[in-house]
Amino acid sequence: MDTIGTLRSYTFRVRYAETDQMGIAHHSNYFVWFEAGRSDYCRDLGLPYGEWEKNGVFMPVVEVHCRYKSSLLYDELVTLEVFPTEWRGATMTFSYRLLHADGKLAAEGWTKHAFADARGRLIRHDNDFIVRLKDLMLSDQMTPAAQPAAK
Amino acid sequence: MDTIGTLRSYTFRVRYAETDQMGIAHHSNYFVWFEAGRSDYCRDLGLPYGEWEKNGVFMPVVEVHCRYKSSLLYDELVTLEVFPTEWRGATMTFSYRLLHADGKLAAEGWTKHAFADARGRLIRHDNDFIVRLKDLMLSDQMTPAAQPAAK
Amino acid sequence: MDTIGTLRSYTFRVRYAETDQMGIAHHSNYFVWFEAGRSDYCRDLGLPYGEWEKNGVFMPVVEVHCRYKSSLLYDELVTLEVFPTEWRGATMTFSYRLLHADGKLAAEGWTKHAFADARGRLIRHDNDFIVRLKDLMLSDQMTPAAQPAAK
Amino acid sequence: MDTIGTLRSYTFRVRYAETDQMGIAHHSNYFVWFEAGRSDYCRDLGLPYGEWEKNGVFMPVVEVHCRYKSSLLYDELVTLEVFPTEWRGATMTFSYRLLHADGKLAAEGWTKHAFADARGRLIRHDNDFIVRLKDLMLSDQMTPAAQPAAK
Repeated sequence: MDTIGTLRSYTFRVRYAETDQMGIAHHSNYFVWFEAGRSDYCRDLGLPYGEWEKNGVFMPVVEVHCRYKSSLLYDELVTLEVFPTEWRGATMTFSYRLLHADGKLAAEGWTKHAFADARGRLIRHDNDFIVRLKDLMLSDQMTPAAQPAAK
Repeated sequence: MDTIGTLRSYTFRVRYAETDQMGIAHHSNYFVWFEAGRSDYCRDLGLPYGEWEKNGVFMPVVEVHCRYKSSLLYDELVTLEVFPTEWRGATMTFSYRLLHADGKLAAEGWTKHAFADARGRLIRHDNDFIVRLKDLMLSDQMTPAAQPAAK
Repeated sequence: MDTIGTLRSYTFRVRYAETDQMGIAHHSNYFVWFEAGRSDYCRDLGLPYGEWEKNGVFMPVVEVHCRYKSSLLYDELVTLEVFPTEWRGATMTFSYRLLHADGKLAAEGWTKHAFADARGRLIRHDNDFIVRLKDLMLSDQMTPAAQPAAK
Repeated sequence: MDTIGTLRSYTFRVRYAETDQMGIAHHSNYFVWFEAGRSDYCRDLGLPYGEWEKNGVFMPVVEVHCRYKSSLLYDELVTLEVFPTEWRGATMTFSYRLLHADGKLAAEGWTKHAFADARGRLIRHDNDFIVRLKDLMLSDQMTPAAQPAAK
């Protein structure tokens, strides 16, 4: 899917606890990494997710998908690319790519989110905070200095 | 997707450690539960997954999907339905439904697997163990006594 | 440590996701299992922990310890013994033993808890709910039928 | 406990998936963080743990302890201090402190390890690799530039 905002990249190492007895990172952890990338993304955008919740805006996950191409190993340095790919009414989608240190694709996936209040009720898409967030995300243009290296 | 073998049901409770600060089960755990269901399924089929690995047959995950319909809460009693839905060459797909105690759908998903050896190389679909497994799974007919209650 | 209430036993299987590349259950999961055992214990006592929180009583962990004697493996059937061993002011301690199917000790540990309100402030030990809980836990005598098998 | 080698510091952020419905980081994750710190420590020492395993030297956990002083919250920037505190025969102990951004102590703990081969059998303390590791760890003196800021 094509990004509708800026693509941001983050790096991390696979933890030992994240491996399984097949000797590779367990597939459930990819969604934990995607989420950590969303956190970094929103913080870098200037709207840390922690502030959303303080404003009564929660972003529960409504659908996820991941395709695993090449196993990730313990202590491997991984690059995670995060980019928004869809904004439709009161839902939005983040997409992700995980790359080995040599740039080879390890996995790709997406997570679709709804905007909800603390009780889980959907929030209207014309809510002030949502409008501000959408404007910020779709108009987001990183300065050249902040651009991740081309891949 | 339609099942191509028997549907089996298992129950479990949501652990406290599986919740997050939104007060619901974190979405990454659903894949851990799906996997636990696969383990139970294969054991009940008479071919525990641990034996597969001893025979040099591994079943890495190549693609996953999940749709979240209704949050699962701490200590809630959940029913997990597991059923094979596709067998194509050297890959197969398990599908899942998670139900609240009142039978309401909480989530549904699927995981696609390849058959590989200990080094991660794909195994031919005419491998003896794979053939035996496929025959067993597709011809699997539980006795009435073992059938889960109708839903 | 000696129990000051009833010892209760629960069984579970080690999940694949709980293993690591050493081929054994990762040590951090033992505390997740201990916690699941506390949940079962409190539910069986007639005071599910979910109700505590609804009464504004939380039980954060203040100290933990575990000694690992013998590795636990994927799909292994494990017995978890849970028993309270100390009640001092507004803190209490649960102790645990994990046993292989043949009764051999796999690990033993304890977790110490404080009673706190939703904001994390300590609750006085003469709080009504705490007094009721303490009375219930220390006077707890399971009927013979409910006693776990001797080990 | 007093360190017998160099103290190294690492920083990380608490992941959303690591929180629980009490709104704080779940206590089991502290051991995952300790382990990630050990990985960083050994890599910085010049002997990445991945190489140990390739040399047939495994370091299973035999005992752990942690005292929780002050809760860690989602997205909080945490400093982890790692330092070896004991080396006795074929076992060794790492100690840890977790600090809030303002330097306040959040938790402290230790993990005791044995040296074992791939089958879990204890390795003699005069094994070449162990001797080399011990020499390296106990003589480890970081250059001033590499010293973490004083706390």
